[in-house]
Amino acid sequence: MIRITLPDNSVREYPEGVTGLDIAKSLSNSLAKEVLSVTVNGEVYDLTRSINEDAEIILNKWDSEDGMHAFWHSSAHLMAEALEALYPGIKLGIGPSIDNGFYYDVDPGEGVTITDSDLPAIENKMKELAQQQNTFVRKVMPKKEALEHYTRKGDQYKVELLNDLEDGTISFYTHGNFTDLCRGPHLPHTGYIKAFKLLSVAGAYWKGDERNKQLTRIYGVSFPKQKMLDEHLAMLEEAKKRDHRKIGRDLELFTFSHVVGSGLPMWLPKGAQLRERLEEFLKKVQREHGYEQVITPHIGQKELYVTSGHYAKYGEASFRPISTPAEGEEFLLKPMNCPHHCEIYKFKPRSYKDLPVRMAEFGTVYRYEQSGELHGLTRARGFTQDDAHIFCRPDQLKEEFTKVIDIIFVIFKALDFKDFIVQISLRDPHDKEKYIGSDENWEKSEKAIIEATREKGLEASIEYGEAAFYGPKLDFMVKDALGRKWQLGTIQVDYNLPERFDLEYTGSDNQKHRPIMIHRAPFGSMERFVAVLIEHTAGKFPLWLTPEQVVILPISEKVHNYAEKVLNLLKNCDIRALIDLRNEKIGRKIRDSELKRIPYLLVVGEKEAENSTVSVRKQGEGDKGSMNLQDFVKFAKQEIEKQLEDISK
Amino acid sequence: MIRITLPDNSVREYPEGVTGLDIAKSLSNSLAKEVLSVTVNGEVYDLTRSINEDAEIILNKWDSEDGMHAFWHSSAHLMAEALEALYPGIKLGIGPSIDNGFYYDVDPGEGVTITDSDLPAIENKMKELAQQQNTFVRKVMPKKEALEHYTRKGDQYKVELLNDLEDGTISFYTHGNFTDLCRGPHLPHTGYIKAFKLLSVAGAYWKGDERNKQLTRIYGVSFPKQKMLDEHLAMLEEAKKRDHRKIGRDLELFTFSHVVGSGLPMWLPKGAQLRERLEEFLKKVQREHGYEQVITPHIGQKELYVTSGHYAKYGEASFRPISTPAEGEEFLLKPMNCPHHCEIYKFKPRSYKDLPVRMAEFGTVYRYEQSGELHGLTRARGFTQDDAHIFCRPDQLKEEFTKVIDIIFVIFKALDFKDFIVQISLRDPHDKEKYIGSDENWEKSEKAIIEATREKGLEASIEYGEAAFYGPKLDFMVKDALGRKWQLGTIQVDYNLPERFDLEYTGSDNQKHRPIMIHRAPFGSMERFVAVLIEHTAGKFPLWLTPEQVVILPISEKVHNYAEKVLNLLKNCDIRALIDLRNEKIGRKIRDSELKRIPYLLVVGEKEAENSTVSVRKQGEGDKGSMNLQDFVKFAKQEIEKQLEDISK
Repeated sequence: MIRITLPDNSVREYPEGVTGLDIAKSLSNSLAKEVLSVTVNGEVYDLTRSINEDAEIILNKWDSEDGMHAFWHSSAHLMAEALEALYPGIKLGIGPSIDNGFYYDVDPGEGVTITDSDLPAIENKMKELAQQQNTFVRKVMPKKEALEHYTRKGDQYKVELLNDLEDGTISFYTHGNFTDLCRGPHLPHTGYIKAFKLLSVAGAYWKGDERNKQLTRIYGVSFPKQKMLDEHLAMLEEAKKRDHRKIGRDLELFTFSHVVGSGLPMWLPKGAQLRERLEEFLKKVQREHGYEQVITPHIGQKELYVTSGHYAKYGEASFRPISTPAEGEEFLLKPMNCPHHCEIYKFKPRSYKDLPVRMAEFGTVYRYEQSGELHGLTRARGFTQDDAHIFCRPDQLKEEFTKVIDIIFVIFKALDFKDFIVQISLRDPHDKEKYIGSDENWEKSEKAIIEATREKGLEASIEYGEAAFYGPKLDFMVKDALGRKWQLGTIQVDYNLPERFDLEYTGSDNQKHRPIMIHRAPFGSMERFVAVLIEHTAGKFPLWLTPEQVVILPISEKVHNYAEKVLNLLKNCDIRALIDLRNEKIGRKIRDSELKRIPYLLVVGEKEAENSTVSVRKQGEGDKGSMNLQDFVKFAKQEIEKQLEDISK
Repeated sequence: MIRITLPDNSVREYPEGVTGLDIAKSLSNSLAKEVLSVTVNGEVYDLTRSINEDAEIILNKWDSEDGMHAFWHSSAHLMAEALEALYPGIKLGIGPSIDNGFYYDVDPGEGVTITDSDLPAIENKMKELAQQQNTFVRKVMPKKEALEHYTRKGDQYKVELLNDLEDGTISFYTHGNFTDLCRGPHLPHTGYIKAFKLLSVAGAYWKGDERNKQLTRIYGVSFPKQKMLDEHLAMLEEAKKRDHRKIGRDLELFTFSHVVGSGLPMWLPKGAQLRERLEEFLKKVQREHGYEQVITPHIGQKELYVTSGHYAKYGEASFRPISTPAEGEEFLLKPMNCPHHCEIYKFKPRSYKDLPVRMAEFGTVYRYEQSGELHGLTRARGFTQDDAHIFCRPDQLKEEFTKVIDIIFVIFKALDFKDFIVQISLRDPHDKEKYIGSDENWEKSEKAIIEATREKGLEASIEYGEAAFYGPKLDFMVKDALGRKWQLGTIQVDYNLPERFDLEYTGSDNQKHRPIMIHRAPFGSMERFVAVLIEHTAGKFPLWLTPEQVVILPISEKVHNYAEKVLNLLKNCDIRALIDLRNEKIGRKIRDSELKRIPYLLVVGEKEAENSTVSVRKQGEGDKGSMNLQDFVKFAKQEIEKQLEDISK
């Protein structure tokens, strides 16, 4: 008998060779129907794989990533099976589960192409095969044998993959007529996969290297229930409408130019205004929290990044160095602001009384990404971090952490992100050697983070072994209006850079001490944040933030004078207003303004001009009736001021 | 007889071979004493050189650049004569007049060095030689003969210079025992040089190329009268105190790091604050003038600058291209913002009704300078232009020009530059082919500039042939508190970039038309402007702008509470205040605050705490007596508000 410990710490005995599915059944039949994989002593197993020793186990359902990924991974195999059936001689690359589904990279062979129009036929084949409820069977064989198998089969991609694997035993999964080189885990059988949809076809270079052959990548997503799939597809449809690239273009917030270069956003007037307002807002919050703004150049000598360690880590894969026509100097586009800030810290001697130093910069950094990886503002080659570095004494760490959490809360509140998850990443307690910094400091800082989150009333999950080698961290993930998760706001402790830059302060003991550094960027980057904000709000920004707050729509040329009067009054009251003087029907003007997501539409005709009133419409909500002009101005000003007050509370 | 036309258009007849000095004497004896060179049909002559044909002449006195430069150039020869006398075998490089005096690059020979301590001896020798009143004699000889002379003399630098000259006849100047290869012009004799001072010794690579030998450069300055020299030396002394590099360090405005790289300023918190306030100020003014801010990346594909023509012109001498690890792309650090703005102009079709488009950006650009040429913030490798580009129709040019002049006036007023010079640079009317753009457009735009300046009541000098090949321009030069001239504010018309980027708008005739572009940057760059502002104000910035407006100086620890109360009150009233809580004597605290140029110092002791008063001191003016705390706050707020009102009027 072996001892199985469940997540609630209860212990049960089972015969050796028991499977996850057996255990689930022994607990409850309804649980057994829902469970998708089992985590055994930290490793994820198939539900049907034998457990041969005492173990701590977790039964993974759809609500856990390990359950979901087993589901999607098996779906990828099911798709591959269908493809082999429909396209004889097709060669397979890799087929993993991803954040939102799965894909398989395939080479359909000379002259054969697979396009979006072929997807329904593949889906049908998958449906047919899923109904066979073929069981996934795991088999282990030595690398040599595996190589022989695929060489015989003429499967060059799998041969390449095998060659890259370490020698030893390699696992294979078979279901029905399909076998794949695979680490697993998988579902018990294909019948689990009840609802799926193949989403799109794209080109993808083998191993992501453009010098290799371009394979065909087929994306799909699957769910245990049809209703879940329907909801997901509806969400995807809504997400498409909210795509920040589309809204950014429609609202003229930003643009890209292939002449300027891929992944280099240019902010158009309205976008620049929006971004500037966000920066002003954060600057104000940070000023109140004792931050000081600095401005540093966008390049630095290569040596700077050799010192920081960034060159050794990212140098080769990044934008190449910039040389000078004479003097043999070498500069790099700055990939991060911290080395510059360390140099500013060093510009004068610091005493324990000077700390904490909180140095903030809206610093534009440049990082190379393959053009195929670029995606609007969320994945760009140049972006502006709302960066700050706090240099503090060990005894100040907790308070500084708490203050950063406060700032993140202010931002979430101001921009209406109500739903978020918090994660604390600590050292792997069994492998302390791989971390830089003294044991004492790590213990102190880990304790400080845990206490700070607790005192702020946050329910944080703690992940051991997820800390960076140079310090523990705290992560915030927000859920947007469509339930999608976005990583925003990391607070990272750093013992490494102070060491590398030899940063010091004189303590009250008159000795030299090393400060601790905290990196933090609540928005992450202005680009990414604005993208998230667009997708979260569908471009309907809060009134205080939106580029154009009010539009005046004259019904005819006769009232243009009155419309101008309204405009001037609004502008004098610092309300961002514009006027639509086009010679168009009022219906068209209203429609166009609605599309521009302008919160208030003021229709003015002769009646309004006579009585000094405006007909107020609210974006998305229609007619709100007539209002005295002065009253509307007061009302709008109050609404804006109230929002600003609320967020600064 | 030849006909000589004077600047007042009067015409006089003189015998052929008459000299400038003869003409001056014929006009007045006092004029003859003051005149230094003569401009004959546009070429500057020695006063003693014969005029052999009808000519328009200008007699150049000290107040003209051509007079001053003849004086300084002759002074360089006088210094060289002294050096040859004192250092036998010394080899001479070049010895020009410069903006503020003259220098000579010399090679004193193996093992011989010239240092600052040798300068008095050289000055004495110069004095002795000047008293000899040796006449400068011009002699012309063929290049071959000149080469033979210097080869015989073993003067390798002059041989090199001669080799670089075009074949033909070469001029030499001799005075006393000294002869130099020289284009001239020179003074009649060395006796003119009555007052001079050798200022410093520096190293300078031969021909400015670091691969060549380093020569010794000796700087000097000279004047017709001792009093002028004394004033100049006093000004230099004051300028040294106002050196923006020194004040920038003392006030902690900016810093440089040799690890980050030469010529790359990093703005410290106080400097960043000052700069941001200037930017906010200009943004506000520009918003009121219908500008829209954009934000563009700091790099662009090489292709972008090939299109703009900048690569062909500056490419080789600038920061080298940045390549990517894959995909074979090439980017350049952006040396200017205009190409990006052209791409933004093109992002959507424009109609004649949309123009003018006024696109502004505080755009940081990078231009390579040799490290020896760098100088604090005035000559840096990275700087942020207060850039804007106006895209307009030809009929809008004059109004746009007028509006830019308005903005420049607002800035001069806000920052207390009262003394400035305006110059209009037009085409060379005799060489119209070398300019791009239609004759009609040039005529229109030149007329527009002239009319705009006239309507603004500006006395502008008109310089023909000084326009860029792509358009006429208007320049503003301000004089600072020490009388030094600084170029600030250029308004440049551009017909070239709209052509190169194929910019268009649809006219009222429904046809495609080319817009005209205006480049303008009233500050030039934030870096350069802040440097000028520091040197102009000696770091005593206007109250509205200065980083720290008020400092509170508690006399003892007993009144720290009261001091904090004062601080909070000031902060709540948006007055930028700080407090000096150091355990120092009040005298020391006052001295330190004075050095920091903080405008108001509030001394608080027990008496003040009891009566809720403050003892007010004004920077540089001393004690202003006691004031009720509330009254001081009101007073300070009023002064700031008044300044802000004044500048926005």
